[in-house]
Amino acid sequence: MSDHSDAPVRPLPAFELPYYVVVFSSVRTEGDHGYGETAGRLDELVREIPGYLGHESARKPGGLGITVSYFRDVAAIERWRSVGDHRDAQRQGRAEWYEAYTVHVAEVVRGHGFARERSERSE
Amino acid sequence: MSDHSDAPVRPLPAFELPYYVVVFSSVRTEGDHGYGETAGRLDELVREIPGYLGHESARKPGGLGITVSYFRDVAAIERWRSVGDHRDAQRQGRAEWYEAYTVHVAEVVRGHGFARERSERSE
Repeated sequence: MSDHSDAPVRPLPAFELPYYVVVFSSVRTEGDHGYGETAGRLDELVREIPGYLGHESARKPGGLGITVSYFRDVAAIERWRSVGDHRDAQRQGRAEWYEAYTVHVAEVVRGHGFARERSERSE
Repeated sequence: MSDHSDAPVRPLPAFELPYYVVVFSSVRTEGDHGYGETAGRLDELVREIPGYLGHESARKPGGLGITVSYFRDVAAIERWRSVGDHRDAQRQGRAEWYEAYTVHVAEVVRGHGFARERSERSE
């Protein structure tokens, strides 16, 4: 999904327990087939889901992509799964966008982070 | 980490429960500082850990990187955490390689995958 900010890229922080992570690893087909527009819309829609905490993505150009999405509980994941536009996108994903994907849903048992001390810079 | 294969890139499959995922999201500093050589060595070392199932990575050029590593149980994660070369790399990561990172350790509760039916092609 997209990153519209000009701020320095930073990983999402660990959240306070309890929370869940959904790992989505995928390889795309060639061409866009409407993927970009739909991804942008879903990127906004998921923010409205109660219990959604955040998501982030990376993709090697032309290669594997990994999106990790964080939710407070299983109920929040189910709410997101049941959203009509999301279900439509899942169908279109299998029909057009993805060569292959794997989804893992997991309950986080420990999270921590590191950030370098840095002097202030103008952006 | 690295991918030396010429086979088509595919996401790792879901494994049979139980298993754990370690999500490592990071933003690198500029320059290599020995990162590539160490990453390649750790890539081999982790395969020797009993209970290690697999890992995969993606990084936006110059941006966020996500590595997901799969282990059978918490004991396997602890074995990997205690390996000397891995501990050294974690220290060097904080000293030189990473602007910031976040680690989430999570117990997978559900996993599934999709792969497109495709006609055989020569590589």
